[in-house]
Amino acid sequence: MKTMKAVVFHAKDRIAVEEVPRPVAGPGEAVIRITLTTICGTDVHIVRGEYPVQSGLILGHEPVGVIEELGAGLDKFYAVGQRVIVGAITPCGQCFYCLNGSHSQCGGPLGGWRFGNTINGAWAEYLLVPDARANLAPIPSSLSDESVLLCPDIFSTGLSGAESGRIRVGDSVAVFAQGPIGLCATVGARLKGASLIIGVDPNSDRLDVAHRFGATVTLNSREVDVVEEIKRLTDGRGVDVAIEALGRQETFENALKATRPGGIVSSLGVYSGKIVAPYEAFHAGLGDQTIVTTLCPGGKERMRRLMAMIEHDRVDLSPLVTHRFSLDDIESAFDLFSSGRDHVLKVALYPDARAIASSRERSYQRLVTATPGDAAI
Amino acid sequence: MKTMKAVVFHAKDRIAVEEVPRPVAGPGEAVIRITLTTICGTDVHIVRGEYPVQSGLILGHEPVGVIEELGAGLDKFYAVGQRVIVGAITPCGQCFYCLNGSHSQCGGPLGGWRFGNTINGAWAEYLLVPDARANLAPIPSSLSDESVLLCPDIFSTGLSGAESGRIRVGDSVAVFAQGPIGLCATVGARLKGASLIIGVDPNSDRLDVAHRFGATVTLNSREVDVVEEIKRLTDGRGVDVAIEALGRQETFENALKATRPGGIVSSLGVYSGKIVAPYEAFHAGLGDQTIVTTLCPGGKERMRRLMAMIEHDRVDLSPLVTHRFSLDDIESAFDLFSSGRDHVLKVALYPDARAIASSRERSYQRLVTATPGDAAI
Amino acid sequence: MKTMKAVVFHAKDRIAVEEVPRPVAGPGEAVIRITLTTICGTDVHIVRGEYPVQSGLILGHEPVGVIEELGAGLDKFYAVGQRVIVGAITPCGQCFYCLNGSHSQCGGPLGGWRFGNTINGAWAEYLLVPDARANLAPIPSSLSDESVLLCPDIFSTGLSGAESGRIRVGDSVAVFAQGPIGLCATVGARLKGASLIIGVDPNSDRLDVAHRFGATVTLNSREVDVVEEIKRLTDGRGVDVAIEALGRQETFENALKATRPGGIVSSLGVYSGKIVAPYEAFHAGLGDQTIVTTLCPGGKERMRRLMAMIEHDRVDLSPLVTHRFSLDDIESAFDLFSSGRDHVLKVALYPDARAIASSRERSYQRLVTATPGDAAI
Amino acid sequence: MKTMKAVVFHAKDRIAVEEVPRPVAGPGEAVIRITLTTICGTDVHIVRGEYPVQSGLILGHEPVGVIEELGAGLDKFYAVGQRVIVGAITPCGQCFYCLNGSHSQCGGPLGGWRFGNTINGAWAEYLLVPDARANLAPIPSSLSDESVLLCPDIFSTGLSGAESGRIRVGDSVAVFAQGPIGLCATVGARLKGASLIIGVDPNSDRLDVAHRFGATVTLNSREVDVVEEIKRLTDGRGVDVAIEALGRQETFENALKATRPGGIVSSLGVYSGKIVAPYEAFHAGLGDQTIVTTLCPGGKERMRRLMAMIEHDRVDLSPLVTHRFSLDDIESAFDLFSSGRDHVLKVALYPDARAIASSRERSYQRLVTATPGDAAI
Repeated sequence: MKTMKAVVFHAKDRIAVEEVPRPVAGPGEAVIRITLTTICGTDVHIVRGEYPVQSGLILGHEPVGVIEELGAGLDKFYAVGQRVIVGAITPCGQCFYCLNGSHSQCGGPLGGWRFGNTINGAWAEYLLVPDARANLAPIPSSLSDESVLLCPDIFSTGLSGAESGRIRVGDSVAVFAQGPIGLCATVGARLKGASLIIGVDPNSDRLDVAHRFGATVTLNSREVDVVEEIKRLTDGRGVDVAIEALGRQETFENALKATRPGGIVSSLGVYSGKIVAPYEAFHAGLGDQTIVTTLCPGGKERMRRLMAMIEHDRVDLSPLVTHRFSLDDIESAFDLFSSGRDHVLKVALYPDARAIASSRERSYQRLVTATPGDAAI
Repeated sequence: MKTMKAVVFHAKDRIAVEEVPRPVAGPGEAVIRITLTTICGTDVHIVRGEYPVQSGLILGHEPVGVIEELGAGLDKFYAVGQRVIVGAITPCGQCFYCLNGSHSQCGGPLGGWRFGNTINGAWAEYLLVPDARANLAPIPSSLSDESVLLCPDIFSTGLSGAESGRIRVGDSVAVFAQGPIGLCATVGARLKGASLIIGVDPNSDRLDVAHRFGATVTLNSREVDVVEEIKRLTDGRGVDVAIEALGRQETFENALKATRPGGIVSSLGVYSGKIVAPYEAFHAGLGDQTIVTTLCPGGKERMRRLMAMIEHDRVDLSPLVTHRFSLDDIESAFDLFSSGRDHVLKVALYPDARAIASSRERSYQRLVTATPGDAAI
Repeated sequence: MKTMKAVVFHAKDRIAVEEVPRPVAGPGEAVIRITLTTICGTDVHIVRGEYPVQSGLILGHEPVGVIEELGAGLDKFYAVGQRVIVGAITPCGQCFYCLNGSHSQCGGPLGGWRFGNTINGAWAEYLLVPDARANLAPIPSSLSDESVLLCPDIFSTGLSGAESGRIRVGDSVAVFAQGPIGLCATVGARLKGASLIIGVDPNSDRLDVAHRFGATVTLNSREVDVVEEIKRLTDGRGVDVAIEALGRQETFENALKATRPGGIVSSLGVYSGKIVAPYEAFHAGLGDQTIVTTLCPGGKERMRRLMAMIEHDRVDLSPLVTHRFSLDDIESAFDLFSSGRDHVLKVALYPDARAIASSRERSYQRLVTATPGDAAI
Repeated sequence: MKTMKAVVFHAKDRIAVEEVPRPVAGPGEAVIRITLTTICGTDVHIVRGEYPVQSGLILGHEPVGVIEELGAGLDKFYAVGQRVIVGAITPCGQCFYCLNGSHSQCGGPLGGWRFGNTINGAWAEYLLVPDARANLAPIPSSLSDESVLLCPDIFSTGLSGAESGRIRVGDSVAVFAQGPIGLCATVGARLKGASLIIGVDPNSDRLDVAHRFGATVTLNSREVDVVEEIKRLTDGRGVDVAIEALGRQETFENALKATRPGGIVSSLGVYSGKIVAPYEAFHAGLGDQTIVTTLCPGGKERMRRLMAMIEHDRVDLSPLVTHRFSLDDIESAFDLFSSGRDHVLKVALYPDARAIASSRERSYQRLVTATPGDAAI
């Protein structure tokens, strides 16, 4: 039996790089060799024991790689050796939920999220991809691995915040929190045609980045009364659409308060408890408000569309990749990412350490020299 | 100065029939002579002091009548003597909110609701109608006043619960609470093409009525675990759409729990405090859920459409009118309606007492002899 | 090798019942034993050589049956012996088109329509079902085979005309042609909440049936100027939505003319040549009009939803099945159906002739004794 | 009686600057002093006698100005002296069509288009604005008159092509013809998040401009087989959305052919005859295609939104204004514009000739030195 290197979760705060059996493709499945992956905020929740997964599971849900093996029935659609990405969410396309358009809930609540949650994930040399025909998305030859690294999760998630918010051209939009997801929601607001785009965060560095990703105004939530300021910017009404990108009661509540009657609160955050809609902010249930939550859309078509945006120069998310590590150094990478030190936004994890050497270290400096709005043009 | 009879709100639990000045139509306004009106649950909140309005205000927001006077600019659209209804909500059609499609929020939060809230209402012999061109809806000659009495508010509101829930043909739907609004939401679910329609209420009499209004299954919330039972009826998943028609935390929470991932909770209730989405029911924010609130749609086109449904025998809401009173007897009428005694659903209030004599008393019996589903066919 | 009986197309006007090899299920495929099927207008086009298919193909695309064999990977979803239907359109759920929501165009133009078109069809004792997981829809135990016979195609198609027309509650709708598809579109208009529903046809018998299926007004196109009459019924404006259910220039053109500015023409017909939008009817391209065509939606979820409508007594299409035949008598059945004689609407074809004897002959009489609108309540 | 200067239409090819009575505001109306206006392709049709208007009518439907007089009922919303624009389309917000969301068809077919069509237009010193409350849109103080000159018609129209095409993020889009409307449709495709944006025109100069307005690929219809080339660029499928921006059978037909099954053809052109959908391109009515036409959206909210896009640097349409004229020189201006000479795109017409001197002549050069895509970022 062939083996491979992988990052295995054992218990709260205990992950380790280990040699484990390499997966084999069954009918309709594929195995890809991972060339690049990354760490998500959700992985931090998992490692810290705040979101339960089985001991022994390989973590990670953001795969970039090359097709290594194709199970029965796939060879007319794909070829071994093709460069592909796979979404964090892997819908089957054939169940009740998928056929009703709720692909992320494939098979049941949150069911489309399999990698690093209910099946082995992408922090490994090889990854088994279920329902491969619906999920393998070839990478356009002009695009580098790093340029598409954020498509499997945070670009898809952030953009979905703008999509579920049904942003119309000319809308005013506020995005609460400007971490990687929030920044991609800001990009999404821009791509959907918002006019006034308000980025909110307590961290002034991230607000600088927000400007570069399309925010037309930024508000530091440590310095101003965010709700009051948003009302002031919108003739006293509130924004048409607010996007929550953190997962806390406070940001949810501010999003609701900052949205005009008839507006939409689009929530992306992962909450760790109940959520409360205050009486006034909820207009006693009479404000024609919509609150909508969205789990990262997946599937090969979603991935193809996101990569097409990069291919046609509509988006450049590569500035978000601030650091690079070998997968062997997962502990250092995890430590940096979870601490938020050194202006880290996203880290690139290379199973093959030699691939890192081929490119220079990028840094936050790249961001601050960019032109406003240039991440999404 | 001409005067008229009207029901005036003075203070908590103090309303009185009084002689007050009769309104005069300014430019763009009309005065209608009220022939019929009714009492709404919201009026009960107002009289009990739970929803604040100014002392001296004439209450009531469900007018049926005849055009008495037309202000400047309206004579090419209407004629004195035309029978009309006016929605409880009177949008101007020309402000920020109306032009953005949020007609019920005309001018600001809840701003479309004027009658008996911010301007004098329909419990009177005459009513001043603002923005008359957008709001006077002629009654088809084949329809009686009573047959259209519920269009201005509860039919429009109940139906909007089904519309905002974006019910698709074949959806499963649960309607929480089967008072007049909930019954009209049940009718709405039927009119939008739901398959399984679950009516929920603690009152078995109202569940009987729910069957007649289109519920295919009813659940007594005193007798069964409603959420569990709804899951059982839907292969363990929950309904596609739940409609909340009461305005309590418990019904909201059950609606959320009873809805499948990717589903919609459409809320019609007027809440008297904060609303909480529990962690599990909210799927930590990852369930692709939508929560939407709706304030009664108004305007003449809405009214025309609702009346067209009655005219073409798609709906018959007259069984909901269980009692008749002279407007002079408002205190008795209010007492009966607010108590819920005697199977009361809605009461007809006639400013001219002689109009009552022309028709026989109806009663709850009429309902129970009807065929299942015949309110919405 | 096992064989079976099937109706094979050889050339224009030449079909024959023959003994042919019985299909075997590969991975992801299933074989069902057909218990009931029917003839569609499209089959008439094929047999007459107006729509080309390969010689040797088994025709028919409306299968009702029992699972006979399950290919690899399906046994956790289905069991041999389950009663199922399969849509005329069999989307894979995993390709570009399916993942973009265009399931009927699965794989390419019209690609979802496989049975009796690009692969062997349902006029046989056994049928191979591709992408079975996405397409096998279990029949609720309370429903007979005949009660669900029209779900695979004409109910799905007719309803889709109302759905693509985005009919809103209170809309006025005209349905051009009242053959089986048009009648199901009339049912669909009713299920979507139309108020005024105008059925149009040159055949007065079919207009009688249209009343029973939900038309509130019928117009005989031989006797009146249909466009003028529709304008008269709609205050001179035209209907909100017109559904074309025949596939001729004349009906398309009348549908366009009879629709108000801002309205929708929803086209279901199969056209045999170009389609022309006249200058006046098209308002020079400035009328905010929408023309939309729809190919029958398929997939197991669509089938489940349609059957749920029948299960919950929202629709009863069984009156449309006017005649029964053994599959051996395909030529007689085809002759009757294609001639339109004897008030035929749809014929039931039984591969096992003994199944017919178990139920009485139905006839057009059943229809004319029904209550108006009772097909869709 | 006060008089004013205005351009009056007398007969085919006969317009003249004349002194005519100055309008006075009635109730709900306003008079604005025009500071800037422009010529539209539709005006060319009118002057050439291809679109009939009454002799004696003042032409022009793109007003920029200052409020001169407010009729009764408007002073709480506006003040004399405010800078405003008014859309080419002036919906009332209160009629059947407006309340059904078809504002451009206000009152009847094409009824929202009043200026220079059914009432006096903007080629004058003063303009009477009907339903002023719904139509006067204040100009943000940071924006110049020229920067908002294209909002009343071509920006609104071009963008609506993208909106009615329901472009989703990642869609591929082709825009047929790159005149001012087509260029604004290209901008719209970009603002709605298209990835591949294909600009089509026979004029290579305009294709250069198209690149600057957001086209990612341009095709010269004189040099290549456009349909074939579009298929090649889209893996053989065709674009998700095609926008027709000319109004000819050939471009409509190519748009239809170049659109994938399940796609949308969004038509903006003004056609001068019937339109034909060829059999193959229309997939016999089975391709799940949508054809939608749109008349320029108007109303103050639309104008506010468009100006907000300019205010927040999402769009800069000023490069489209290539020439400036005094209104007195309407004949020279008209001659230049209708001839298409000298790279003309849009001309600015100043009723007060002194206003021209305050700014330098712009030219096509400005465009060609811009960065790709910078009109819509």
